[in-house]
Amino acid sequence: MTASSDKEKPKVLYIPWANPIHDPQAWKTLNENFDLIYYDCETPEEWIEENSKPDGGKYAGIRAICRSTWLKGQPYLNHFLFRGEAVKYIPDTVEIIVQSGHGYDIVDVPYLTSKDIIFCNSPNTCSVATADVGTYLVMQSFRYLTYAENCVRKGNYYDAWPLTYWGANPRGHTLGVIGLGNIGFLTAKACKALGMNIVYHGRSRKLDYENEIEGLTFYSDLNEMLKVTDCIYIACPYSEATRHLINFERFKHMKDQVRLVNVARGPIVEQEAVIDALERGQLVGAGFDVHEFEPKIDPRLLDNYKITLLPHIGVSSRSSFEAFEAKCVDNLMKHFYGGGKPEAVNIELLK
Amino acid sequence: MTASSDKEKPKVLYIPWANPIHDPQAWKTLNENFDLIYYDCETPEEWIEENSKPDGGKYAGIRAICRSTWLKGQPYLNHFLFRGEAVKYIPDTVEIIVQSGHGYDIVDVPYLTSKDIIFCNSPNTCSVATADVGTYLVMQSFRYLTYAENCVRKGNYYDAWPLTYWGANPRGHTLGVIGLGNIGFLTAKACKALGMNIVYHGRSRKLDYENEIEGLTFYSDLNEMLKVTDCIYIACPYSEATRHLINFERFKHMKDQVRLVNVARGPIVEQEAVIDALERGQLVGAGFDVHEFEPKIDPRLLDNYKITLLPHIGVSSRSSFEAFEAKCVDNLMKHFYGGGKPEAVNIELLK
Repeated sequence: MTASSDKEKPKVLYIPWANPIHDPQAWKTLNENFDLIYYDCETPEEWIEENSKPDGGKYAGIRAICRSTWLKGQPYLNHFLFRGEAVKYIPDTVEIIVQSGHGYDIVDVPYLTSKDIIFCNSPNTCSVATADVGTYLVMQSFRYLTYAENCVRKGNYYDAWPLTYWGANPRGHTLGVIGLGNIGFLTAKACKALGMNIVYHGRSRKLDYENEIEGLTFYSDLNEMLKVTDCIYIACPYSEATRHLINFERFKHMKDQVRLVNVARGPIVEQEAVIDALERGQLVGAGFDVHEFEPKIDPRLLDNYKITLLPHIGVSSRSSFEAFEAKCVDNLMKHFYGGGKPEAVNIELLK
Repeated sequence: MTASSDKEKPKVLYIPWANPIHDPQAWKTLNENFDLIYYDCETPEEWIEENSKPDGGKYAGIRAICRSTWLKGQPYLNHFLFRGEAVKYIPDTVEIIVQSGHGYDIVDVPYLTSKDIIFCNSPNTCSVATADVGTYLVMQSFRYLTYAENCVRKGNYYDAWPLTYWGANPRGHTLGVIGLGNIGFLTAKACKALGMNIVYHGRSRKLDYENEIEGLTFYSDLNEMLKVTDCIYIACPYSEATRHLINFERFKHMKDQVRLVNVARGPIVEQEAVIDALERGQLVGAGFDVHEFEPKIDPRLLDNYKITLLPHIGVSSRSSFEAFEAKCVDNLMKHFYGGGKPEAVNIELLK
């Protein structure tokens, strides 16, 4: 924490988006307590160039960067400023970066830590929105309702009859959660209310959750869990360890008819293995909010209504964006004006 | 019940469909215990003609009619044999009619009763499937996810950004159930798990349900309930009393921003009032599995992704069709071979 008087409001670089949604209170707090400079580089290269100027360029003296807006919102969608070459050009004056969202795989946290820059994501601000989309995709992996909707919209009201064959009730089936964090738990609870049994795999048992969901069962061995799972639900963080966690080999441990939902990160699932399992008839339903090569999706999936395809919009509800802003502003306020420590990923810097 | 020996198996007119799904045990029982005659009229007019023949035609002597298949399945989709002119030509020998599905608005039950014909629907066999679609539509009325899916399928991955504005979490909002029967209760339970508050309106309080869902609150006055409701959920039976239950006048009692889901019967909701409320911005989301003039849907709705449109397929899961057959066969067995009374709509005939 650095004391800040009213006269010298900390300069904050604010990265806007085309469709602002604000939490009224947080937005007011941000504007009243900080000197906001709006990011406006045309390209990430311009960012590097600007910050390399002898006088520090137009962002000279910024003490924080606030990207509380949607990471996938235009116009700065492809401006990955916190990794690769770009991260090295963050001005030395920056003390803290606050960012929307739960995942931060587009951020080079070790580098930021090496430069003593605190990095805060916005955990648990979008868990409900993402978990709801997860529940939706579980349902879809059993019922394939967008196939029916597509028939209606095209004027073919009675063409949805294949659903009488394809469709199954989630009830009585087993959901196997990989990564039972906040998001996985919320989805598990909703699926339990739909009559599903819930099992989970992860690094550790979650006794609190086990107390809240009747019959919730832990499997330390993923392959053992797959043997009893009807619908696999991926909600774990992405890392080198979880890359291609679901691959060709893994399908050998699954049931003859299995469903798969991914709301975490695309590369956790090997797309080719999915296409193979679909073609072999083992994968009978799936729901993906994230994709290995997003925004590119294999054409073999694009016309297949056994898979529900969403464009990484688990987070997309107004309440998520309002909560992101509130969380980011709260972290900035704590850092510059006190009242507690910011909720940082590289928490070691705060010790 | 009429005693039946092995030698004289009761003749049953079986109305098939193009895509048979069977409950293995029930199908075996049906074939072993009854002499099945397959319905094969090209038109309902042929049915009338056939049954008017002096010798009784090809369906002479049938003692039951079994339509355990999907009422909306081809090829007999538009053969409404149990109402209008057609019902009057049911052979005098028929004692019982068993039919799939929960609703029976396409059946003239009073006429059947006047002819001493027992009529059995298949209640609670498709409640789970229908309630799940209801839950799905509630979610959709808040999140509009098929809009996003449509963007993906068309190759416009990043065009789903309006959902950041439109989208809201069901959590914290109030679901107002009209008609808290089995289907309404199952949806209410799932929506409760999504964090919604649940209120309901109907002819009577349901204390059993109130004990199962925390905070479940009864409103004897529909308009009073509408005042506190964020998403209206229609799951009541259709009758003259519920026709246009949701109409222009009713919208005056609703919140400024309201959502509407209908999984019961189309004409309960006046389509013109829906279109008007959408255009005025009061109706911000909706999900319809049924439609006032189905299969015709107003073109003003067909391109509007704030409304999720399904082709009356709430029931469409294999388990529903298996359960229909099991229920229908069970009712036939009870009537002809004993072991209890069939579960009839016109229960007065069984006294």
